[in-house]
Amino acid sequence: MSFFPASIENLVDKLASLPGIGTKSAQRLAFHLLSLPEGEAEAIAETLLTARRSIRRCRVCQNLTDSEVCPICENGRRDRGTICVVSEPKDVLAIERAREYTGVYHVLHGVISPMKRIGPDDLALRELVGRIAEGGVGEVIMATNPDPEGETTASYISRLLSPYEVKVTRLAYGVPVGSSLEFADDATLTRALEGRQEY
Amino acid sequence: MSFFPASIENLVDKLASLPGIGTKSAQRLAFHLLSLPEGEAEAIAETLLTARRSIRRCRVCQNLTDSEVCPICENGRRDRGTICVVSEPKDVLAIERAREYTGVYHVLHGVISPMKRIGPDDLALRELVGRIAEGGVGEVIMATNPDPEGETTASYISRLLSPYEVKVTRLAYGVPVGSSLEFADDATLTRALEGRQEY
Repeated sequence: MSFFPASIENLVDKLASLPGIGTKSAQRLAFHLLSLPEGEAEAIAETLLTARRSIRRCRVCQNLTDSEVCPICENGRRDRGTICVVSEPKDVLAIERAREYTGVYHVLHGVISPMKRIGPDDLALRELVGRIAEGGVGEVIMATNPDPEGETTASYISRLLSPYEVKVTRLAYGVPVGSSLEFADDATLTRALEGRQEY
Repeated sequence: MSFFPASIENLVDKLASLPGIGTKSAQRLAFHLLSLPEGEAEAIAETLLTARRSIRRCRVCQNLTDSEVCPICENGRRDRGTICVVSEPKDVLAIERAREYTGVYHVLHGVISPMKRIGPDDLALRELVGRIAEGGVGEVIMATNPDPEGETTASYISRLLSPYEVKVTRLAYGVPVGSSLEFADDATLTRALEGRQEY
């Protein structure tokens, strides 16, 4: 689209590279951002930079946070004897929304995927095994996505943890098969938590 | 949502304030942006800042550009005797997509709206009248949105230009009434251009 200057085209390209944003949405967003007072546009850019720079992984559960230990791991009222294993930080958000789970989490930051050349060593598994080896954990709930990669990852982890005296369970198939955990509604997630099965 | 650190919540809030982005989309975008390598997140913020800082209005048509005169006004092959008047820069994009129009534009940056306290003085009307007064313009095509505010603005401008020897036309109602020009398809816009009517 040569009738717009390069700086606008660059912005549209960057926005269109984000998940769920097509070319038309990107154009609409770009013109909105460019029509904002300069201070507001700077505030948005600054918020992104601040968040990206201050963010790191929680020393315990590996979830994204801006302190050494995340708010959930620090919360004394959460049951540290139950660990829910998810693949991404957004899955923690999905489960917290259901207001049913009172344990803690472990975020893998990925799933095993031979297609994408992601192996067990690319996930935060050493940290998970370390938490189990320390003792005090009675149950590990596998809550990876109910798709082939999520299933493979969950069953790999259940074998990995078999030397330890810990119950490994899986979210019940209340979650629709083939979908993403992120989009499940609260009721489905609640039923999935209640009906979890031992491996 | 107290289980995520403030910097992530701030980012989600900023993203959710953009048009067409709800809370869930904002969360998905935020986690995507935070999982990017730091350099890529900085590149996105930098692109936004560069675009916002370098952008200004074309001296001739008032469209957003990063030079004194925009690429369309500078293009010697465009017919400067025909001016298409639109309310927003994104409407220029919509009409250019139809590949039918060979004239130049004038961007009003708004429409007359008593509800939003936007009057004629808030639009780039003085610049439009200046272009007509200079002479050499045979036709002004009103291409504001086919909604009440767009109609009011178009008919106000047609009266404003009546002292000058210029034909003022309006896009034909090929564009679906009550919708936004931005979402019209190419064929509809082409028919609307071909069937334009004189006031």
